[in-house]
Parts: sequence; C-alpha cells; structure tokens
Amino acid sequence: MELDAAKMIGAGLATLGLGGVGIGLGTLFGNFVAGALRNPAAAPKVFPNLLLGVALTEALGIFSLLIGLLVLFG
Amino acid sequence: MELDAAKMIGAGLATLGLGGVGIGLGTLFGNFVAGALRNPAAAPKVFPNLLLGVALTEALGIFSLLIGLLVLFG
Amino acid sequence: MELDAAKMIGAGLATLGLGGVGIGLGTLFGNFVAGALRNPAAAPKVFPNLLLGVALTEALGIFSLLIGLLVLFG
Amino acid sequence: MELDAAKMIGAGLATLGLGGVGIGLGTLFGNFVAGALRNPAAAPKVFPNLLLGVALTEALGIFSLLIGLLVLFG
Amino acid sequence: MELDAAKMIGAGLATLGLGGVGIGLGTLFGNFVAGALRNPAAAPKVFPNLLLGVALTEALGIFSLLIGLLVLFG
Repeated sequence: MELDAAKMIGAGLATLGLGGVGIGLGTLFGNFVAGALRNPAAAPKVFPNLLLGVALTEALGIFSLLIGLLVLFG
Repeated sequence: MELDAAKMIGAGLATLGLGGVGIGLGTLFGNFVAGALRNPAAAPKVFPNLLLGVALTEALGIFSLLIGLLVLFG
Repeated sequence: MELDAAKMIGAGLATLGLGGVGIGLGTLFGNFVAGALRNPAAAPKVFPNLLLGVALTEALGIFSLLIGLLVLFG
Repeated sequence: MELDAAKMIGAGLATLGLGGVGIGLGTLFGNFVAGALRNPAAAPKVFPNLLLGVALTEALGIFSLLIGLLVLFG
Repeated sequence: MELDAAKMIGAGLATLGLGGVGIGLGTLFGNFVAGALRNPAAAPKVFPNLLLGVALTEALGIFSLLIGLLVLFG
C-alpha cells in the first residue's frame, strides 16, 4: 500500500476516538440535565463541575482530531 | 506495506483507546453531577475521590495518545 | 508486510485494551462517587473496596500497555 | 505476510480480551461499592460473592494475556 | 499470507469472545452483589441461579479460549 493511500485509511480510523468521546459527553450532559430538572435550584452550583468534566473529556476528542489531522497532512 | 504507510494506520487505530477513555470519563463525571445535584452539600467532600478517579482514568488516555505519537513519530 | 510495519499496526491495536479499561474505571469511580454523595458517612469504610477494584482493573490496562510497548520496542 | 509481522498484529488484537474484562470488572466493583454505600452493614457478608465474581472474570483477562504472550513469544 | 502467520492473527481475534464474556460476567455478578446488599437474607436462595448463569456464561469464554488454543496449536 502506498503512503498516500494509508493516510486516507488512518485518518478514517482516527474518528473512532471522536465517536467514543461523543458517547461520553452525551452521558455527561444527559446526567446533568436529568439532575438539573429534578433539582433546578442546585444547578448553578454544580455547573463548574460540569465544565471541568467537559474540558477533560473534550480534550480526548481534540487529541483524536489532532492525530487524524497529523495523519492526513503531517 | 511500507513502514511509512503502516505508521498512518497504526496512529489511526491508537485513537481507539482515547474513545474508550472518553466514554469512561463521561460516565464518571455524569454520575458525579447527578449525585451532586441530588445532595449538593456533600459534593466538596466527595470531590477528591472524583479527582482520583479522573487521574487514574485519564492516565490511560494519555498512554493511548503516547502510543499514537510514538507510532507516528517514534 | 514487513516486521517494522506490522509493529506500528500492532501497537495501535494494543490501545483497544486501554480503551476498555478506561470504560471500566469510569463506571467504577462513577458508581463510587454517586453512592458517596448519597451516603457520605459510609464512604471511608467502602474506600478500601474501591482501591481493590481499581488495582485489579488498572492491572489489565497496564498489561495492555505492556503488550503495546513490547510490540513496539520488543 | 511473514510470521514475525503477524505475531505483532496478533498480540495487539489479543488486548481485545483485556479491554472487555476491564469493562466487566469495572461494572462488578461499581455495583458492589454502590450497594455497600447503601447498606454498609451487609458488605462483609456479600464480599465472598464479590471475590468469586472477580476470580471468574479476571481469569478471562489472564487467558487473554496468556494468548497475547503465546502469540508474541510462543 | 502463510498458514503460520494467519494462526497468530486468528488467535488474537479469538480473544474477542473472552472480552465479551468478561463484560457479561461483570454485569451478572454486579447485579447479584447489588441485589444481595439490598436484601442479604435472600442471597443464599438466589445463589444457585447465579451459579447457573455463571456456568452458562463462563462456558462461552472457555469455548473462545479453546478456539484460540486450537488455532494456535491445533
């Protein structure tokens, strides 16, 4: 297989990480909105924790996108 | 297949680990925000446990990124 | 396929184990923080069980990383 | 494909089992700590059942590691 | 691809079964310990059902290991 062809397959495979992070972020926000609907008064206090979780989880998706772009153009 | 071509496919596959850790972190933070919305007073006491879990889980994602970068540039 | 090329693909595949262990650790810590927020007084008593679970689960991730590094550099 | 190259890919694939067992152990310990936080008094009585489950599940991870090492060095 | 090389890849793929059975056993024992912690008095009566489930689930893991070893050495 030539290098150019392998780049296409590698970049496609790199979206596997994006998919997993998508499941994780969906679970995270899903739990937050379910809890916030049960106890709306507490939501502003818990919001910073949500943002911390989003930042740490989303970082993995950014790493994955980075690998995909490095494979494609690096 | 040449070495250069295989590097591209290997790096793409290495995002599998990032995806799994993304699911794990989403579940972890999702359970934390759901519990914190139910009992906001206890959240500061449980926060160190959350950070321990984040560190141990995120480490696996960093290992995975490390393997991906070693494959790509090592 | 040459040996060098296969090493790259094998190391990428070895992150599959890291991803699965990431999901498991996230579930384990997620359940712990959810339970500790419901009953904070009992958390110190259950903490050793958590550490036992973390050690046994994390070991599988270390095995997986070990295989990945053996494939890459062994 | 030569035998040496296939060994690398086979060992990488063998971490699939480690990942699955990691998910399983996380679910098992997660349910135990969640239940023990709800009813700490009963935890010592249920602990032997936990150990039985851990032994039977971890064995599958060890089998998987065994296949990985047999493929790599056997 | 030669027969020897294919054996290595086949044995690695055979761990897919071990991983799936690991997830299943973890869910099975996790639900048992969670239920036993909620109602410890009933646990001995439900234990035979757990063993039946374990035997039937673990058998699939053993079949998977058998195929892996047959592929490798058969």
